[in-house]
Amino acid sequence: MKFKVENLRTRKQEEVIYITDTVADFISVSGLKEGLCVVYCPHTTAGLTINEAADPSVASDILMELGRRIPFQDGYAHGEGNSAAHIKASLMGPGVTIPVRNGALQLGTWQGIYFCEFDGPRNRSFSISLLSDIE
Amino acid sequence: MKFKVENLRTRKQEEVIYITDTVADFISVSGLKEGLCVVYCPHTTAGLTINEAADPSVASDILMELGRRIPFQDGYAHGEGNSAAHIKASLMGPGVTIPVRNGALQLGTWQGIYFCEFDGPRNRSFSISLLSDIE
Amino acid sequence: MKFKVENLRTRKQEEVIYITDTVADFISVSGLKEGLCVVYCPHTTAGLTINEAADPSVASDILMELGRRIPFQDGYAHGEGNSAAHIKASLMGPGVTIPVRNGALQLGTWQGIYFCEFDGPRNRSFSISLLSDIE
Repeated sequence: MKFKVENLRTRKQEEVIYITDTVADFISVSGLKEGLCVVYCPHTTAGLTINEAADPSVASDILMELGRRIPFQDGYAHGEGNSAAHIKASLMGPGVTIPVRNGALQLGTWQGIYFCEFDGPRNRSFSISLLSDIE
Repeated sequence: MKFKVENLRTRKQEEVIYITDTVADFISVSGLKEGLCVVYCPHTTAGLTINEAADPSVASDILMELGRRIPFQDGYAHGEGNSAAHIKASLMGPGVTIPVRNGALQLGTWQGIYFCEFDGPRNRSFSISLLSDIE
Repeated sequence: MKFKVENLRTRKQEEVIYITDTVADFISVSGLKEGLCVVYCPHTTAGLTINEAADPSVASDILMELGRRIPFQDGYAHGEGNSAAHIKASLMGPGVTIPVRNGALQLGTWQGIYFCEFDGPRNRSFSISLLSDIE
């Protein structure tokens, strides 16, 4: 399995970072033609999502609305003060699985892959796994 | 990798469409016995989920409750007026990964796969990827 | 494909159960070195998530906050009285896909895999699928 860890530095408490090109570049370098691409986030206060890449206000609307529904302070038991970030991470999920055909990610026209920071700024990472198929 | 794109036409602004049979039929035709089935939605205002197939009111309750929590108008920045649909797409997610054993999807008794339209009616599609295992 | 079904008994109406060790043990027994691990929940009122394993209050905060946003009674159409559980299952999702390298799950330092019961107590199960890669 082709596998790579990518590091990134987030700059704000909450931020959505476009990582599609990083993922696509690894597929090109790896030579994978047919298979699955799994992008995985190893953090518990960050997650991954796929959404519109053309207008960055879509990503900011996602952060705004998640923030309205999951307040930073809400009588949480966890003592570190970042329970909202943990909850948002579970709502977005820790990973996405995308088909690869003819060496290309099968994303839709408007789709981009986003790293979702909910408790930054921090040094973060994500992994890219490429699983080939024999047939 | 066995791969197929299925087209569908949604008829309402919001709608949940049962696609389990379409996925199961492709597995039958493909001859896959052991592996993974990835169903993927290439849109940014639609998603996929797995939930109860026996009573269609479960799907309508999901749409109703998502609509109450994520209002159509809420001071969003994105100018197209469909930010709620983008947010709901990220909450449901763009894909599901289901094991296949002995040629059959390993869904639970009550589970069905659903295409979730949040900004229709539109012409939509989803893909089915089947990854075999050698062992 | 290495595949196993694990049974568990939940004890409360809502509960988050740590299953990381069960998954890791199956990887050890299977001998898988490189590939993907898919943990899948076949129920429609339970789901799976990955979040902090160090402090159990994170899991209880997730349950608390989901409960505040998705009330048990909210004019739902589904007659069994457990629509909130169905909705929460779709929000968490039915499965997680985690890379395996050198025989080890590539979870982050603080991550654990959790079975999320939203309509217990019940007898439940989840499956573990291990897909190897030839390269």
